[in-house]
Amino acid sequence: MNSHAVSVMLLSFGVLLCFARALGEVAQRLRQPAVLGELLAGVLLGPTVLGNVSPELGLFLFPPQGPNAVAMDTIATLAIVFFLMVAGIEVDLSTLWKQGKAGLKVGMASIAVPFFFAFLVAWLAPQALGKQPDANPLVFALVLAIAMSISALPIIAKTLMDMDLYRSDLGMVVISAAIFNDLIGWIVFAIILGLMGESADRGNNIMQTITLTIAFAAGILTIGRWLIHRVLPFVQAYTRWPGGELSFALILAMLGAAFTEWIGIHAIFGAFLVGAAIGDSAHLRESTRVTIDHFVSFIFAPVFFASIGLKVDFLAHFDLPLVLTVLGLVCVVKLAGGVLGARWGGMPAQEARAVGFAMVSVGAMGIIIGLLALQAGIISQRLSVALVIMAIATSMMSGPGIRLILRPSKRWRLQDSLLSKLFFRELKAVSRRNVIHEMTTAVCEAISGLNIEAIEAAVWDREEALSTGLGKGIALPHARIEGLKEAIVAVGISDTGIDFDAPDGKPANIIFLLLTPRNDPRVQLVIGSEIARCFREPKMLEQVLRTKNFTDFLALIKSFR
Amino acid sequence: MNSHAVSVMLLSFGVLLCFARALGEVAQRLRQPAVLGELLAGVLLGPTVLGNVSPELGLFLFPPQGPNAVAMDTIATLAIVFFLMVAGIEVDLSTLWKQGKAGLKVGMASIAVPFFFAFLVAWLAPQALGKQPDANPLVFALVLAIAMSISALPIIAKTLMDMDLYRSDLGMVVISAAIFNDLIGWIVFAIILGLMGESADRGNNIMQTITLTIAFAAGILTIGRWLIHRVLPFVQAYTRWPGGELSFALILAMLGAAFTEWIGIHAIFGAFLVGAAIGDSAHLRESTRVTIDHFVSFIFAPVFFASIGLKVDFLAHFDLPLVLTVLGLVCVVKLAGGVLGARWGGMPAQEARAVGFAMVSVGAMGIIIGLLALQAGIISQRLSVALVIMAIATSMMSGPGIRLILRPSKRWRLQDSLLSKLFFRELKAVSRRNVIHEMTTAVCEAISGLNIEAIEAAVWDREEALSTGLGKGIALPHARIEGLKEAIVAVGISDTGIDFDAPDGKPANIIFLLLTPRNDPRVQLVIGSEIARCFREPKMLEQVLRTKNFTDFLALIKSFR
Repeated sequence: MNSHAVSVMLLSFGVLLCFARALGEVAQRLRQPAVLGELLAGVLLGPTVLGNVSPELGLFLFPPQGPNAVAMDTIATLAIVFFLMVAGIEVDLSTLWKQGKAGLKVGMASIAVPFFFAFLVAWLAPQALGKQPDANPLVFALVLAIAMSISALPIIAKTLMDMDLYRSDLGMVVISAAIFNDLIGWIVFAIILGLMGESADRGNNIMQTITLTIAFAAGILTIGRWLIHRVLPFVQAYTRWPGGELSFALILAMLGAAFTEWIGIHAIFGAFLVGAAIGDSAHLRESTRVTIDHFVSFIFAPVFFASIGLKVDFLAHFDLPLVLTVLGLVCVVKLAGGVLGARWGGMPAQEARAVGFAMVSVGAMGIIIGLLALQAGIISQRLSVALVIMAIATSMMSGPGIRLILRPSKRWRLQDSLLSKLFFRELKAVSRRNVIHEMTTAVCEAISGLNIEAIEAAVWDREEALSTGLGKGIALPHARIEGLKEAIVAVGISDTGIDFDAPDGKPANIIFLLLTPRNDPRVQLVIGSEIARCFREPKMLEQVLRTKNFTDFLALIKSFR
Repeated sequence: MNSHAVSVMLLSFGVLLCFARALGEVAQRLRQPAVLGELLAGVLLGPTVLGNVSPELGLFLFPPQGPNAVAMDTIATLAIVFFLMVAGIEVDLSTLWKQGKAGLKVGMASIAVPFFFAFLVAWLAPQALGKQPDANPLVFALVLAIAMSISALPIIAKTLMDMDLYRSDLGMVVISAAIFNDLIGWIVFAIILGLMGESADRGNNIMQTITLTIAFAAGILTIGRWLIHRVLPFVQAYTRWPGGELSFALILAMLGAAFTEWIGIHAIFGAFLVGAAIGDSAHLRESTRVTIDHFVSFIFAPVFFASIGLKVDFLAHFDLPLVLTVLGLVCVVKLAGGVLGARWGGMPAQEARAVGFAMVSVGAMGIIIGLLALQAGIISQRLSVALVIMAIATSMMSGPGIRLILRPSKRWRLQDSLLSKLFFRELKAVSRRNVIHEMTTAVCEAISGLNIEAIEAAVWDREEALSTGLGKGIALPHARIEGLKEAIVAVGISDTGIDFDAPDGKPANIIFLLLTPRNDPRVQLVIGSEIARCFREPKMLEQVLRTKNFTDFLALIKSFR
């Protein structure tokens, strides 16, 4: 790279990051996931808007070929690898396992249903969808079917994180489904690529790819996980803090990503699996996790999501009827797949609809498939543009869709549910098990008509599945209870603190016991996020510990904005 | 980039970072700056060693052309830009100003003295130094003179940071001298490039470059600094924490770097100046600074310094007499320049010698000049290799040289004295008297040549005079022992706790037995205050009680900041 290329590269990275972060912030202000703004930044700076307003400036900043294009590719690739590593670290393997059955069903339905229907439509009406005249109709239908059934793991993960749903039960079902969908999608895509003749020897390698993928995933999640857990203390003890741990995580992620890319599935899987294995180790220090998370979520991820829009001009070869057809078709088949899978997995109707919207994102995968099929002469340029628009549009509608479904009718505030008879200033229990017993007993004494054994069992089951210690001294044991009409929020305070296995290792001083109606999963999420919001400032905890009675406590909560 | 290139890229980044970090850690263990090991990693993985041992593997991992070479360039460029931004943030503008006079004198002498003598030698004996027969002797002498007088700001900054000297008065003199040297060096180099005919229109632009450089530096350090200070609180208030501040800093650094690269001096200056302006604002949060610093110092910087060695084969065209001549000449002239400048600036002799060694690094600049002069047919291939070796060798000798002269009384840290044979996880004793007996006995068994009765008596006498229970579960029985050469720190842990009559009434769970040399009362104070500092947080005690063995304990102490 000569001096000119270096200077353009730095300028283009700076401008891209600036737009992505600014629009991401705007999106969040409008209560949308940041990823929506980040994707939009790419559309604005790419050929679609900037390229049409000022083609010279567009080509100068983001040339489609040459060293600067490679530089952008490099950063986007590293960004997505590190982002998926963070998504892996954040994922809780034990919950993933427990939600596995529902996740598997959603994953299977979310690929099979869209694939079947999209294939059917493409097979019956190829010309209407923009098949090239001399392309093989079977290959055409297969390509369109896979492009419409794959889900974008990175976008789904980012949307859920942006909405604070990533670690919820709903989030874990969606993530396990997306992993499954993506893995199957990549393997099917590899088979179709063989049929497309993109690489002649690919057909022979498919079995090898599948075998290696399974072996790698199993290896990382068993031996790899065990090894990482053993090696981490040595890295911490014998290298400079925190450099050893930090580079250990990034090196493993890059090597894992290189391996999965090499065996024929995408680099993101290796990074995700390595992240999951690292995040599972109790030795990983919170401060390292936070450093990585901040740098990746606020620098790398915005650059990656913005870079998606840089590649395509959504206006050239724009064919409105085709775009609407493709978009309508993909929305129907993907929503149907997600909702059916979630219902099949035993989820209530409202949650199932949210899952449907979460799985609707096609993302970068759809763009890659569209471009490859165009190069192979299978689809028309109009269709490739329609596929790209579909990929971005579905990614953008996912977050707003989830918000629309889960939206609380009126914004719930903590103070609305606080009752003095459900406020226990001095908890006696000193363990997780005992405090749940103490609080459920007290609640059932204060409110008549509750089945004390069933409630305690439900809360404890949930607690055992995944600790509800939020960190910062807060714990939120909860359960959804059959027959309950309204949410019950009990507050217990322990001056000594109770170990709730929180991510930051701190004992919980304030325990919110949260019982919500069985058939309304939304309430639980709303209350949980409101409590987390209230106690974001560490000062709040100190002030609560200084309160003497319910009035003090209520005043404090109300004065919090 | 196709799938193969992506997979190779991730693999090569992973391997490079792994080697750089590992050798950096080794260097630090040997009490050398980490940058020495990081530079060595590049030499090992580059054409010099790996390229000769296994040329296929070398070319596969680090190809000199093509997309993977551009990818490596991209990362190295971003790394050096962000590293210089951190160096800028860390720099204290007011100190820089105060040391400015000395710095200016060192900077001037460090470029004028070597330039004069190197020019003289190259002018008088061009053939001996490897001038190409048909090259202009004036240009040849000028190129050699500038290659021998420039200093490598990044390497100097990294070396000083690695040695904890960056923010010292000495460090600030050296840094301001290096900035001055580098700025002048780049401008002189631009003039010589014009003479070399590398870019025909360059000659006309030199005045423009100089004007723009001065205007940019002045603008950033006055209006820019003021604006950043005003804007930062808004960024903090109206964006998600800490993403806004983090990306604000990186975006400005990239834009500043793009600008200085564009006006014809190197990108690092823009990044450095922006960093200095940001770091000067009292609004910049410590946690943001730490996040950036960790990511840059432990990930980006090692990759950059390692990448330097990837470009050149130090063995091909290796000419020992020429290498020794060039290396000897540069050491003499640069040391002389630095030392004379420092003495002129009024520094004492010992510090002046340290400054001389600090300014000796030629670094990446020397490599760039060598390669450009080779392409222009001015110097022979033998000389270009000699220049590169000189650049790396001087960078490597700088740190050891400073250490040799200053022998800094390094800050003692608890982890430096911990030994697994002096760690007793489960103390049996339950009283003060018995635990002192138990621990002194165990220490005298682990370390030979100690008089057990005398030591136990001395510790117990001290303990009886005034209890050593510090409170918060810590006790620090100690004594000064005749004939001891080095401090001995033994650690005993008691899960039940032992009454040490502490001011807070709590029993001691961690007992540090501290034996120090009779004639050095300072050591005891230093160790005592360091232990108290480590255990200021009550959480620390809890975490220690959860450790199972020495490795866990050491990891915990090290990860404490």
